Amino acid sequence: MHLKTAFASELTWPDYDAAVKSGDTPILIPIGSMEQHGHHMPLHVDVLLPTEFARRVALEIGALVAPPFTYGYKSHQKSGGGNHLPGTTSLDGATLVAALKDVIREFARHGVRKICLVNGHFENSWFIIEGIDLALRELRWDGVTDMKIVVLSYWDFVHKEAIARLYPNGFPGWEIEHGGVLETSLMLALHPHLVQLERAVDVAPASFPPYDVYPVKPEWTPCSGTLSSPKEASVEKGEILLEVCTTGIVNALRTEFG
Amino acid sequence: MHLKTAFASELTWPDYDAAVKSGDTPILIPIGSMEQHGHHMPLHVDVLLPTEFARRVALEIGALVAPPFTYGYKSHQKSGGGNHLPGTTSLDGATLVAALKDVIREFARHGVRKICLVNGHFENSWFIIEGIDLALRELRWDGVTDMKIVVLSYWDFVHKEAIARLYPNGFPGWEIEHGGVLETSLMLALHPHLVQLERAVDVAPASFPPYDVYPVKPEWTPCSGTLSSPKEASVEKGEILLEVCTTGIVNALRTEFG
Amino acid sequence: MHLKTAFASELTWPDYDAAVKSGDTPILIPIGSMEQHGHHMPLHVDVLLPTEFARRVALEIGALVAPPFTYGYKSHQKSGGGNHLPGTTSLDGATLVAALKDVIREFARHGVRKICLVNGHFENSWFIIEGIDLALRELRWDGVTDMKIVVLSYWDFVHKEAIARLYPNGFPGWEIEHGGVLETSLMLALHPHLVQLERAVDVAPASFPPYDVYPVKPEWTPCSGTLSSPKEASVEKGEILLEVCTTGIVNALRTEFG
Amino acid sequence: MHLKTAFASELTWPDYDAAVKSGDTPILIPIGSMEQHGHHMPLHVDVLLPTEFARRVALEIGALVAPPFTYGYKSHQKSGGGNHLPGTTSLDGATLVAALKDVIREFARHGVRKICLVNGHFENSWFIIEGIDLALRELRWDGVTDMKIVVLSYWDFVHKEAIARLYPNGFPGWEIEHGGVLETSLMLALHPHLVQLERAVDVAPASFPPYDVYPVKPEWTPCSGTLSSPKEASVEKGEILLEVCTTGIVNALRTEFG
Amino acid sequence: MHLKTAFASELTWPDYDAAVKSGDTPILIPIGSMEQHGHHMPLHVDVLLPTEFARRVALEIGALVAPPFTYGYKSHQKSGGGNHLPGTTSLDGATLVAALKDVIREFARHGVRKICLVNGHFENSWFIIEGIDLALRELRWDGVTDMKIVVLSYWDFVHKEAIARLYPNGFPGWEIEHGGVLETSLMLALHPHLVQLERAVDVAPASFPPYDVYPVKPEWTPCSGTLSSPKEASVEKGEILLEVCTTGIVNALRTEFG
Amino acid sequence: MHLKTAFASELTWPDYDAAVKSGDTPILIPIGSMEQHGHHMPLHVDVLLPTEFARRVALEIGALVAPPFTYGYKSHQKSGGGNHLPGTTSLDGATLVAALKDVIREFARHGVRKICLVNGHFENSWFIIEGIDLALRELRWDGVTDMKIVVLSYWDFVHKEAIARLYPNGFPGWEIEHGGVLETSLMLALHPHLVQLERAVDVAPASFPPYDVYPVKPEWTPCSGTLSSPKEASVEKGEILLEVCTTGIVNALRTEFG
Repeated sequence: MHLKTAFASELTWPDYDAAVKSGDTPILIPIGSMEQHGHHMPLHVDVLLPTEFARRVALEIGALVAPPFTYGYKSHQKSGGGNHLPGTTSLDGATLVAALKDVIREFARHGVRKICLVNGHFENSWFIIEGIDLALRELRWDGVTDMKIVVLSYWDFVHKEAIARLYPNGFPGWEIEHGGVLETSLMLALHPHLVQLERAVDVAPASFPPYDVYPVKPEWTPCSGTLSSPKEASVEKGEILLEVCTTGIVNALRTEFG
Repeated sequence: MHLKTAFASELTWPDYDAAVKSGDTPILIPIGSMEQHGHHMPLHVDVLLPTEFARRVALEIGALVAPPFTYGYKSHQKSGGGNHLPGTTSLDGATLVAALKDVIREFARHGVRKICLVNGHFENSWFIIEGIDLALRELRWDGVTDMKIVVLSYWDFVHKEAIARLYPNGFPGWEIEHGGVLETSLMLALHPHLVQLERAVDVAPASFPPYDVYPVKPEWTPCSGTLSSPKEASVEKGEILLEVCTTGIVNALRTEFG
Repeated sequence: MHLKTAFASELTWPDYDAAVKSGDTPILIPIGSMEQHGHHMPLHVDVLLPTEFARRVALEIGALVAPPFTYGYKSHQKSGGGNHLPGTTSLDGATLVAALKDVIREFARHGVRKICLVNGHFENSWFIIEGIDLALRELRWDGVTDMKIVVLSYWDFVHKEAIARLYPNGFPGWEIEHGGVLETSLMLALHPHLVQLERAVDVAPASFPPYDVYPVKPEWTPCSGTLSSPKEASVEKGEILLEVCTTGIVNALRTEFG
Repeated sequence: MHLKTAFASELTWPDYDAAVKSGDTPILIPIGSMEQHGHHMPLHVDVLLPTEFARRVALEIGALVAPPFTYGYKSHQKSGGGNHLPGTTSLDGATLVAALKDVIREFARHGVRKICLVNGHFENSWFIIEGIDLALRELRWDGVTDMKIVVLSYWDFVHKEAIARLYPNGFPGWEIEHGGVLETSLMLALHPHLVQLERAVDVAPASFPPYDVYPVKPEWTPCSGTLSSPKEASVEKGEILLEVCTTGIVNALRTEFG
Repeated sequence: MHLKTAFASELTWPDYDAAVKSGDTPILIPIGSMEQHGHHMPLHVDVLLPTEFARRVALEIGALVAPPFTYGYKSHQKSGGGNHLPGTTSLDGATLVAALKDVIREFARHGVRKICLVNGHFENSWFIIEGIDLALRELRWDGVTDMKIVVLSYWDFVHKEAIARLYPNGFPGWEIEHGGVLETSLMLALHPHLVQLERAVDVAPASFPPYDVYPVKPEWTPCSGTLSSPKEASVEKGEILLEVCTTGIVNALRTEFG
Repeated sequence: MHLKTAFASELTWPDYDAAVKSGDTPILIPIGSMEQHGHHMPLHVDVLLPTEFARRVALEIGALVAPPFTYGYKSHQKSGGGNHLPGTTSLDGATLVAALKDVIREFARHGVRKICLVNGHFENSWFIIEGIDLALRELRWDGVTDMKIVVLSYWDFVHKEAIARLYPNGFPGWEIEHGGVLETSLMLALHPHLVQLERAVDVAPASFPPYDVYPVKPEWTPCSGTLSSPKEASVEKGEILLEVCTTGIVNALRTEFG
């Protein structure tokens, strides 16, 4: 069967059923957030980017993309500016865990046996792991023991060569990339009308002590809400990132899902 | 401030903050589901429709639309065909309650005091109510006592006059409208490329006894998954519905949110 | 074995065990609430009525009646006046779900395979469904896959002919029957000493807009707490209702439980 | 105001409201169980007895009795025979805690400030304590800090003099009184038609090692399900118990509730 | 294999694995609390004592001791002085239940089939039972049905002969032994440097009415925080207790674990 | 007051109370795990190390050390070898969150306003954050808004100069330090009798793809269970680490707690 779309939600149920009931078609679930991304980008960057990676990968490997998780775990000061900021709209950890567990269990009921969580929001990571663990536990109780679940964050596929090209003046580290060159370049390449680069604040890379404090100290986060400057972002860098990450994810899923 | 979009997620945080911090701007949250809608419509009808109503209403009244809930409560046999069907991908009740509670609490933290839940999936109704009640309870503990939350399902705004025009041969009742004339007409008017009316199955209106049985008896649901036939659906009916429901919701929110 | 009572709780355990261990004897569980029912009726109408229907049906079909759930989900303004009213004493949704799940699981442990939830409080409906779904899930994990659970609200068995007889001046709809002709007539027929009809307030039928608001607006509920007037209630109407609903439920359970 | 009944559930809401809104009228909540009580007594002994004690006490002190909790925590082998027995139908601990928390919170909303939990099932004890603690915590968050909650099990009011009269041949200890002289005598005094003393099994007092084993060893429980013999039960002993416990509870509540 | 230690946590994983994978080696889990124990003893008496009993028993029967639970359920006024006291640091019931369930499930995953909960804090008792019940339920869903779990509190092994020797002037009852002769003697025998007997307050035995009140009445607890006087404690009594309880537990576990 | 010990659990309640009631004395809570640490180290490395850092820091700054959390979150394959390994005994995320929330709330009740979570198990990190967030939320509802909570993992205080000295042949990265030079050196310096360096397996540094797979692929973890070789560990390196991390934490807490 040749589907016109990568999005499972755009299929009728007979088409969806035909695609997944054998268990061969992987489902890719984008997990995002509603989170501030500086003065120059909108609040749903973390939904748009993993959804687009999932779409591209799905078209390559014959997978389907599930509806994205539009809300995610609380923003961490050192990776997202902090959950005290306006616009950032987050779930408790238990809620994200439960939602992911429920959805995995439902896809398994449909026959799906290969699932990839495509994460776009760093803070989701551990609650995704817990959601998977609890889902696999319950599926095991239901006699389903042949699930294979891959979890990834797209930026982990940016290899050293790409980093050298993208950050000719030195790589500041993923942890402060929030709203910086990586995300901004991807948004410029994919959704330029949603980027207002002229409003970007050219902040120095955020610097944090080796511990966290709660309640957060707002003064630790740059006034922009980003943790580094997006000024060096460009469409070209976005294209490199799209190419590198998509290829990396495609290869990973071909390896794992056969 | 004049915003170019109704979608909160498309704003930068300073623009979002400027819009909501005073508490005057309402937030409309579409609550949908991933649910089979027959042979002729895709799985995310219940997301697309309330999102579009929310968008139209928001533009009228100066509100913002939050990211939609893309998954909802389990499909009920008598209103959605049943949760045993392929494609239908549902949350446990507690998960939906928790997610809604979390999100309401976050919007309140931003300063929002007027929220409207725009429901597109009947089965969500009672878990939305519980989510609101728990959110208001926790907000009360935080000293926030001036929230006003409206909850509605768009079809409840189709008044008798419209029903007479839409169903000249008699109205079968909302309870079996799943995948029928109402939803199909709206989809035809809004997303015609996602409707394959030629694949629609012209089923007789579903008829159920005055009780439910669990596990569901699959034979009670028409083979199409819809509970009535969409054959009489049309773009024109969709336009009527858009007009009637949007106007009704706009008036309701003007009354409540001033 | 011939039991002198329909109430499981009045049996010794050997008698109970003999009745249920084969799985043939259905258990009927009345699910009520403690909720205001106007100036003329007591707070446990929603316990008394389903318990009596369960008792009558049990005697007809050889079933047993479990102890009733004496508290239920929060009263909804449009169907019970609202949960802000004095006397109304409600559970959170999760509590009702858990209690029902636990009890179903226990009856299944005893050998019961046929259960009927006899609901007397509209607001319980969706939490009953969720409780059943979670119970069946856990029972499935325990290898129990032959449960059959019927859920019903007694008023859904009032057929059109009966409505015509009961409401000669036109039927206002179940949704505003709270504390009205239906419940009051049943109480007059069954527990006249608990009805003080002379205190009943002859309110006009409640009228609500097509949406809800939270916190509720107390002024939307008639001052009586009922949503329509009980003035036309009578013992005769109560007898009709008892006959019609009992017969309907008996037939339903004979169909489903064989 | 003089009420004709001790049962809150038999009041109309205006009468209930008048009784409780000032906070002076105590609410007594019977907490029972559905649990086997030997070959000679029915499954709801633990509901009937605390409800009757609550009723008698309420009439003495001008309190109201709330609807009983009809299900309780799991039967413990050493105090109730074990939860593996037929008929015993129990809640998880978390469910009982949640239900009690919800109900206390609701009574507080009505204005009640004096609550007494009248326990009839030993195994409920610690979950009642937890329910109270969580309820008081949430009420504190709501600014309610003047609640006073008494929790008691009626048998704890049987003083030494009464024990000497009731057990002239020596007191075996409360822990093995399950289905024995105490409960049977009370049932004989109150509900003789529900006792079949001729079916009682004259078991030797149960004897357990100083530890528990799970899963329970069924052979540790006497075949009757009772932990001692009810043969010495009598109406007269029941009357003594009624008098002693009622007086004790009345005095306790007068001391605490003033 | 001969292990140099009774503590599982001191083993390497290959040694641990060799010890437990066959299911023959029992695991003993000390369950304690952080709770005030008067002016003369430290806050972790309830951890130290069960851990030492577990160690001694483990060495006798070839078992391993798991890391202790260092926090427990809330102190009860009548058995621990009350949870309002400084230093007492307690878990909600649900937390203790969950932690125990998780840990039992993990040991079962390792192959362990014999577990003994060695309780040192009376208030933990019922939450331990619930944790075991829920763990066994989930293990059953995983097909593990050969677990045997013993739960005990060490003081329950003090037999009548020992009580006569320990309390020559009469036994006040376990319920008010908190911080009294039993615990103090054991601490003197095992950890004398942690006992400051000269600071002990020679309070009269606490006396409580046959009911509880919440919030607790602080004046019911002796000012020392203990419920009886430790003045008669001695190293010799501690040695007797160590001998009696260790022997009792060893015998019990040999009986149950073979 | 001069305390002889850093451990809160070794104090009597009056001494503890005197130390903490003003809110000036910080409480340090070690959060560990029971987790395999290779063939050469015991299962409680993650408890011993943070407890010792907490003790040293507490003595320097006049703080108290709370009882450690002896169990932690599930081992992650890329940082701890995976939760499928023998000996690793983990909690669900929700359990760890709840336990931490409970304990923080209790310390706050005692008057504590400065808390430091001293983490010794990487996988705990996000659940610690969630536990803190939920505790602060509930404390806020209780009117406590002056808490300051620091969370840290001791290894994050190993600065670049120390890394250069410790890893002269190049630093493999913290993520594969599990059971490697860092932890082994610290254990050699502190608890040499618990290290069997001769049994250590000289594995090549573990190498993982940029994604995770569940259920884990056991073959990705080196057979030793460690993710790098501990062969270069030494007492001297342990002393450097003790000095560097203790100093770093002391300085951090002096900065934050004043």
